[in-house]
Amino acid sequence: MRRLIGEGELADLAQGAAVLGTGGGGPPYLGMLLARRAVHECGPVSLVSLDELADDACCADVAMMGAPTVLLEKVPSGEEPLRALEALERAHRRTVTHIVCGEAGGVNSMVPVVAAARRGLPMVDADGIGRAFPELQMMMPTLYGITAAPLAITDERGNTGVLRTVDNRWTERIARAITVELGCNASIASYLMTGAQARQALVPRTLTLCLELGEAIRCARAAHRDPVAAVIERLGGRRLFHGRVTDVDRRTVFGFARGHALMRGVGEWADTELRLEFQNEHLVARRDGELVASVPDLIIVLQEATAEPVTTEELRYGLRVEVVGAACDPRWRSQAGLAVAGPRAFGYDHEFVPVAAGGPHLGGASWRA
Amino acid sequence: MRRLIGEGELADLAQGAAVLGTGGGGPPYLGMLLARRAVHECGPVSLVSLDELADDACCADVAMMGAPTVLLEKVPSGEEPLRALEALERAHRRTVTHIVCGEAGGVNSMVPVVAAARRGLPMVDADGIGRAFPELQMMMPTLYGITAAPLAITDERGNTGVLRTVDNRWTERIARAITVELGCNASIASYLMTGAQARQALVPRTLTLCLELGEAIRCARAAHRDPVAAVIERLGGRRLFHGRVTDVDRRTVFGFARGHALMRGVGEWADTELRLEFQNEHLVARRDGELVASVPDLIIVLQEATAEPVTTEELRYGLRVEVVGAACDPRWRSQAGLAVAGPRAFGYDHEFVPVAAGGPHLGGASWRA
Repeated sequence: MRRLIGEGELADLAQGAAVLGTGGGGPPYLGMLLARRAVHECGPVSLVSLDELADDACCADVAMMGAPTVLLEKVPSGEEPLRALEALERAHRRTVTHIVCGEAGGVNSMVPVVAAARRGLPMVDADGIGRAFPELQMMMPTLYGITAAPLAITDERGNTGVLRTVDNRWTERIARAITVELGCNASIASYLMTGAQARQALVPRTLTLCLELGEAIRCARAAHRDPVAAVIERLGGRRLFHGRVTDVDRRTVFGFARGHALMRGVGEWADTELRLEFQNEHLVARRDGELVASVPDLIIVLQEATAEPVTTEELRYGLRVEVVGAACDPRWRSQAGLAVAGPRAFGYDHEFVPVAAGGPHLGGASWRA
Repeated sequence: MRRLIGEGELADLAQGAAVLGTGGGGPPYLGMLLARRAVHECGPVSLVSLDELADDACCADVAMMGAPTVLLEKVPSGEEPLRALEALERAHRRTVTHIVCGEAGGVNSMVPVVAAARRGLPMVDADGIGRAFPELQMMMPTLYGITAAPLAITDERGNTGVLRTVDNRWTERIARAITVELGCNASIASYLMTGAQARQALVPRTLTLCLELGEAIRCARAAHRDPVAAVIERLGGRRLFHGRVTDVDRRTVFGFARGHALMRGVGEWADTELRLEFQNEHLVARRDGELVASVPDLIIVLQEATAEPVTTEELRYGLRVEVVGAACDPRWRSQAGLAVAGPRAFGYDHEFVPVAAGGPHLGGASWRA
């Protein structure tokens, strides 16, 4: 059975992606508006599992780059991702057959839908990370030696760049510099790969997981059950904190939304404090100084009672939230994975401590396959 | 008769270009080393006048972008310009037949020689400005609606970008952002144009003028005549100041060497002070507060007695210099020209005041044709 993403699925998909987005990937609502229009005008997008993918399929990641904080004020038209895709195809002299969602995160779960709907292409039921990460080289394909370049980058004015680089870190650096110059927001197409490569290097079933997460939250709300518990159950995650935001320090630095938030506990966590560090995504959580979760594991901030995912730019004084930890794809916990996206890759001077180590969800296996 | 640029011509060419470079375009010595090796290994480069150029010739500008201050420490290998040229050809799907010198300035008079020698192509006896300017859109072709893009940009590591932009100002902005990220120095190929376009949009005979200026300085020195006077005579210029540098304030900002120098007069200018503003090039000269020269006219700083051109990064306390003003190509003095490269285009809040207005060199015509 082939699954379709139509207008009816977009809300669940965006909601689930916002959960996995761990605060990053931009505001889901904005991306959903773009995707809704595209699906409304061009019809639903079919979802192809990695197993179904032909070895010689031509897959490409279409995404937005920049600071989510800026995205809220500098709204894209929806044409930019298509122009990026076309520039990528020209650079490779290949025609893309399948659209890949690079990261499960708010706007970046929707932008590929926009591109797929408008080009009439299927999407792969997978993503490049299994969550959201702030930098371009922090993708599973990097661990498999797959290059992001040639990468195409466009803006709303009609400027386009094609980058060929020596490694994915340089792709990130140059694309980021361009993004900042373009106004901290750009559309990119990159990581062109074959179906065989995609099967190996992508994180399987992420879009289905997003749909299921969104559905779980929606149904729990409707049934007056705890939607936060539904998220935790679906992810095999763990409740890390429940409290109220007491301080937020947020800056836009080099195209990133960086900062930290402090939270004061309630209930079980009364008289304790959580400090949350973020760089586009929620990256490190310390409870009374003790490290309770860090990248590459998922730190998910949800509004109390509604389980509405809270992005880093939505954190504000007084907001009552629950913080959930969940295991990342096990490959991110490998030495190679941690070198690319472990705490030290983000400038934090501590080792990775798995959230809920030894639990039933160790290695993230429980929410895959 | 076809003129050749061999090893014997390089010193004069570099010297003359350094004069027209008005302090910018990078240190001529470094560029000369690269050109000397290329010409030594690959043979001399022939010089083709604009009149001789076939209408369907394919001309391209090869240059370095970045802060000259940085270039002194981050020396290019000489391969980068060729890689930029090849990327430009791939982007246009054209084969370049003639190399253009984008600006008459130290390193950027030599980089095109490197590319021409290594590719076995002739150079056009012209340049894109008639002097040096710090930004990519400040080229005569901009006044004729010729686009810098597609532009190819490369670094010494092997990173390459191809930009397609909405106008030459955006080409500058994006290429500059990339250049800064690459370490404030990159090689670019751009402004691909036909022979017919080149004839209209380039400044004719600039390379011959450079050779003649270099020769004039060399011969004056050998004959114990005043080489500064020889420069002034050849350019139809005017002596603006003679003095000693008393203060220099120089910063590298956004990939540019920016700042100002103060000079205390001697002889005729005793008890007067000259303030020189620069942004890669010497841009504005005020004598005791009075504006005596400004862009787009040429402000040339020469070492006293030797007439060795002084770049903005060579200005230092105690240096004894003579400052010469000369008229730019008359098209820069038009309304359209001043909009692109007049004082206000550089952020100075004053009108253009022609140097030596009414003199025999008005409009720069005296040193053309």
